[in-house]
Amino acid sequence: MRNLLTISDLTIEEIGEILREAEYFSKGEIWRPKQQTFAVNMFFEPSTRTKSSFDIAEKKLGLEVIPFDVNFSSITKGESLYDTVKLFEVIGSNIAVIRHSQDRYYDSLVGKVRIPIINGGDGCGQHPTQCLLDLYTIQQEFGGFKDLQVAIIGDISHSRVARSNKDALSKLGANVVFSGPEEWFDKSFLNNGDYVNIDKAIEEADVVMLLRIQNERHQSTSNMSAKEYHQQYGLTLERESRMKRNSIIMHPAPVNRNVEIADELVEADRSRIFKQMENGVFVRMAVLKKILECGGL
Amino acid sequence: MRNLLTISDLTIEEIGEILREAEYFSKGEIWRPKQQTFAVNMFFEPSTRTKSSFDIAEKKLGLEVIPFDVNFSSITKGESLYDTVKLFEVIGSNIAVIRHSQDRYYDSLVGKVRIPIINGGDGCGQHPTQCLLDLYTIQQEFGGFKDLQVAIIGDISHSRVARSNKDALSKLGANVVFSGPEEWFDKSFLNNGDYVNIDKAIEEADVVMLLRIQNERHQSTSNMSAKEYHQQYGLTLERESRMKRNSIIMHPAPVNRNVEIADELVEADRSRIFKQMENGVFVRMAVLKKILECGGL
Amino acid sequence: MRNLLTISDLTIEEIGEILREAEYFSKGEIWRPKQQTFAVNMFFEPSTRTKSSFDIAEKKLGLEVIPFDVNFSSITKGESLYDTVKLFEVIGSNIAVIRHSQDRYYDSLVGKVRIPIINGGDGCGQHPTQCLLDLYTIQQEFGGFKDLQVAIIGDISHSRVARSNKDALSKLGANVVFSGPEEWFDKSFLNNGDYVNIDKAIEEADVVMLLRIQNERHQSTSNMSAKEYHQQYGLTLERESRMKRNSIIMHPAPVNRNVEIADELVEADRSRIFKQMENGVFVRMAVLKKILECGGL
Repeated sequence: MRNLLTISDLTIEEIGEILREAEYFSKGEIWRPKQQTFAVNMFFEPSTRTKSSFDIAEKKLGLEVIPFDVNFSSITKGESLYDTVKLFEVIGSNIAVIRHSQDRYYDSLVGKVRIPIINGGDGCGQHPTQCLLDLYTIQQEFGGFKDLQVAIIGDISHSRVARSNKDALSKLGANVVFSGPEEWFDKSFLNNGDYVNIDKAIEEADVVMLLRIQNERHQSTSNMSAKEYHQQYGLTLERESRMKRNSIIMHPAPVNRNVEIADELVEADRSRIFKQMENGVFVRMAVLKKILECGGL
Repeated sequence: MRNLLTISDLTIEEIGEILREAEYFSKGEIWRPKQQTFAVNMFFEPSTRTKSSFDIAEKKLGLEVIPFDVNFSSITKGESLYDTVKLFEVIGSNIAVIRHSQDRYYDSLVGKVRIPIINGGDGCGQHPTQCLLDLYTIQQEFGGFKDLQVAIIGDISHSRVARSNKDALSKLGANVVFSGPEEWFDKSFLNNGDYVNIDKAIEEADVVMLLRIQNERHQSTSNMSAKEYHQQYGLTLERESRMKRNSIIMHPAPVNRNVEIADELVEADRSRIFKQMENGVFVRMAVLKKILECGGL
Repeated sequence: MRNLLTISDLTIEEIGEILREAEYFSKGEIWRPKQQTFAVNMFFEPSTRTKSSFDIAEKKLGLEVIPFDVNFSSITKGESLYDTVKLFEVIGSNIAVIRHSQDRYYDSLVGKVRIPIINGGDGCGQHPTQCLLDLYTIQQEFGGFKDLQVAIIGDISHSRVARSNKDALSKLGANVVFSGPEEWFDKSFLNNGDYVNIDKAIEEADVVMLLRIQNERHQSTSNMSAKEYHQQYGLTLERESRMKRNSIIMHPAPVNRNVEIADELVEADRSRIFKQMENGVFVRMAVLKKILECGGL
């Protein structure tokens, strides 16, 4: 594996390998490259979870992490993404993790730079390591994906998670449906049959995957108040009480408490929200290892 | 010791242990946790001294420091302090140092998160590692605290240092008085008898501890000019000449030169201002060690 | 060598030693100080190249790098450069790399602090490690400097590179001429005879060294459009076709593509622009080693 740009780049076998490796790492397995290895995490958008998770994953693998602060970089002098990534390649970084607000930013890089790239999220496009940690969390719970009912609920149109997970989960045999405000239902990658009423979606799902309302990406604030959203499309205490016995709650976070989900449910027994974050480190270690090994490190 | 939130959490014995440990570290003693250990320094307010001092202390103990930049974190997307700290707990940080503008921010964390917390300063509340480094510096000089005369002078009402040091020094047997502009004299934790005229305070003190005017915390700028403040309440060359023979000058810094203290006195023979910063690293190593050991690391 | 402030501080012999050491490092030589050693990179102006290059050079030498973010430091509370550098000295940094917008900022430090200082660029003054990496790149190409024809073209008046390189290359026996807009020709360090017409300069040069238009330092934007600049003073495809057979193109970067140089030429066979960045790491390792060794580390 040279790069990880979208989840669809991975075969089912490769996904399986990564999840297996993640499990080894979760049990304390240690792997380190043979020589001093450098990584740079280039985040052009705010992030705590993904960025810190990569920071820790890299340090657990013994990598040296090169600091990068976009607001204090030569990007402020007009330097392009390509020139910046190429710079890190020539000064010795062995891998670059990139989050960027532009969809498919990596098209300007792939085939042009030699440094391997892990996509840490592109615009409203993909977020493959988030998808992998979701898969890992589901597998951990249910042992597999075949015939699982997954409901993805919320701000689908702006969600990198919705796209990646729809692709991957379907490929692995799960049945994925969507719910939330109809105006956010994105027909560019969804069929009409994919949309299910919120109450039905929650009652039938093994996995209720809530998405964050990305206020920072909405051009105009929605007409709906947070309270109205919660009542109409959120996971209220009442709706949770109608969930299936062994079903779980997931959310990529950060959570808007009492909007997408009732405050009390964030750390409920059936919530895997913090577990997802914990799993993120192991999945990222697995991806980093796979790419570094491919580069002979 | 699970957390360090306020200086009053510590018994006299515990303070003694920390100062002893700090002294060992100052002599080059090496202690490192048995396994790879992660620390995160979450500073929600600007800081050079405290933050960098923790950075160095952590690296001297062989800890991995996870970068955290509040302005580029999901805090900007509305994530709460609790959710952010909990995130660092689950992704593998073993300890968190937090500075936050809100008084007692830690009330939303203690008993709810498992990760140990060191308070790096809360609002106008406490700053326990600053207090410990002040105690260490005084002990280094005088061998103890019994009957020492300490004058704390300046912007008492906004000072985390004033509160912490008053508590601790009194408990250790020193006699603490306060001086400075009367409107900054804070009756919430001081008695009328604690206030002493500036000239008398300086003449009688073994330790003249000056406080920085925290312009960034004053709602309205004081009517007094910097020059007037210096003349009325600052340590002028003239006042310094009336200090006791072996008395010392302290200041938590950053110093407003020629306001709280004459420029020439910042590095005078009797000034311990830079010594305090040096000592800060050793005291923080001692606190980190004590907490990590308590957590079995 | 205690500090590195300007290129003129170095004798020809010292430059030779640094370039030799850089070559060793480029071949994978490993040198590490005998004990845990701390470095701080204090950049008061944006930078990707120089800062990251130092970060990597330091980590390749096994140094611990202390994070420093000026916008989150006590500089925002009015702390001076001197007090900030002195702080890092007393808390244990063994070396400081400083970039600052003020010309000769180091005058407030040298002889007053003990911590060694490497100048990472001062205002419109000097940038000695950039100069050294330019020299190393030229030497790598031509084996030496005697009678080489070097043309420095562009925004000379704001360029730290122009000054440093003029001094050093002349001392080493090269013949340096300048070209570009006449209003940017700086008579404070250049003679009339140094100015050469752009086409002549390019045709006769062994090294065409282009300088970035520093829009961020121009008080008023020039009347000239980017396109006009490119036609009149840029390295166009046409001009490049008239360069000497084995001559090379250099640029300190970031490059304004299609302004100083045609986009297609940035990675042309004769371009050493990315090679310069690669060499920057080795040269900085050599400088760091030389200064740390001098300090007994």
